[in-house]
Amino acid sequence: MRLRNNKDAKGIITASEYVINNPKDYKGKWNTVFNNNNKLYIEIGCGKGDFIIANAINHPENNYIAIEKYDTVLMYAVKKIDKNIPNLRFIRMDALEINEVFDKEVDLIYLNFSDPWPKERHAKRRLTHERFLKLYDDIFKSNKTIFMKTDNIHLFEFSIESLSDYGYKLKNISLDLINSDIKENFMTEYEKKFSEMGTRINRLEAYKD
Amino acid sequence: MRLRNNKDAKGIITASEYVINNPKDYKGKWNTVFNNNNKLYIEIGCGKGDFIIANAINHPENNYIAIEKYDTVLMYAVKKIDKNIPNLRFIRMDALEINEVFDKEVDLIYLNFSDPWPKERHAKRRLTHERFLKLYDDIFKSNKTIFMKTDNIHLFEFSIESLSDYGYKLKNISLDLINSDIKENFMTEYEKKFSEMGTRINRLEAYKD
Repeated sequence: MRLRNNKDAKGIITASEYVINNPKDYKGKWNTVFNNNNKLYIEIGCGKGDFIIANAINHPENNYIAIEKYDTVLMYAVKKIDKNIPNLRFIRMDALEINEVFDKEVDLIYLNFSDPWPKERHAKRRLTHERFLKLYDDIFKSNKTIFMKTDNIHLFEFSIESLSDYGYKLKNISLDLINSDIKENFMTEYEKKFSEMGTRINRLEAYKD
Repeated sequence: MRLRNNKDAKGIITASEYVINNPKDYKGKWNTVFNNNNKLYIEIGCGKGDFIIANAINHPENNYIAIEKYDTVLMYAVKKIDKNIPNLRFIRMDALEINEVFDKEVDLIYLNFSDPWPKERHAKRRLTHERFLKLYDDIFKSNKTIFMKTDNIHLFEFSIESLSDYGYKLKNISLDLINSDIKENFMTEYEKKFSEMGTRINRLEAYKD
């Protein structure tokens, strides 16, 4: 998601108590940031943060870290927080650096409405490409779990194939999330808009030992 | 697919040179029926046969056997054949008996628009349920390959999960077959009708060593 550049974005992000500006310093010891050993769930590409904020508020028993590449986008997420959410943090970074920031400590990765990179020559940039799955291997604590949502059917097709080929088993798949049996679904900004337009949302859970 | 009962159906089927009435006699030696050692592709639930007839005509290098449970449906398939197709045969049987009829000789199974059995208590009847996948294990020659098409999203979701859980890897998935890159697609009777109505067709390929 790209927004008009906002010169204040960097300042707002840097000043926020929810944003970790030196994330590499916490590699392997994110539990010290939260002062507990609760499970760590991360979202790669959090956009304006609706999904991760709702998760963190509703699940105080888990820790949540959301990653976003763009200053301006992350600024909107940070500005939304109007109450204390001690189990939530944000990082402004590129997903390619993920294993410089986490080490064997993540329980679950959320990928919501990731950039589909539709051109075949850009396939390597998709967050479910083998290149990223290899990086994720290093950051998971033990069992690997990825939850994904997207409206883009080609990204979803690609992701099923890529995850399956990498050894993930697929569960709780939905090709029409809003009409599925899945009970708890915190919507992203995109998802609200697309669902209102009648676009089908696809969802999967992927598990690997 | 259920049609009105047709008293002539059994007679027409029994008399057809394309129908094998004693299939258990050929278990493990279907190559003798075709007088060659070409690959054997089977369709479980062939309906009125459009798919398997088109495949057999266009791929004389393979052998095709289509299985159908209902006499009346199979009658329609048989009556369609208006030219010599030496690499095609039909069997009137229930899929549950499949490993009484084939033994380590099938290269690929087609499952097209199988009954979705939407009720959870009927899940065991779905042709991609573990109960059937176990039967298929015995009939494949070596590598296991299943190609599936369906308009039913719940059957497709279930099938991805079931195949994945059983160890199959999923490839060439399409959630909108008619608009996909897949070039050769022989349509079933259902598929033609549904595609004309704008219903999305889902397709997958599943592979297991």
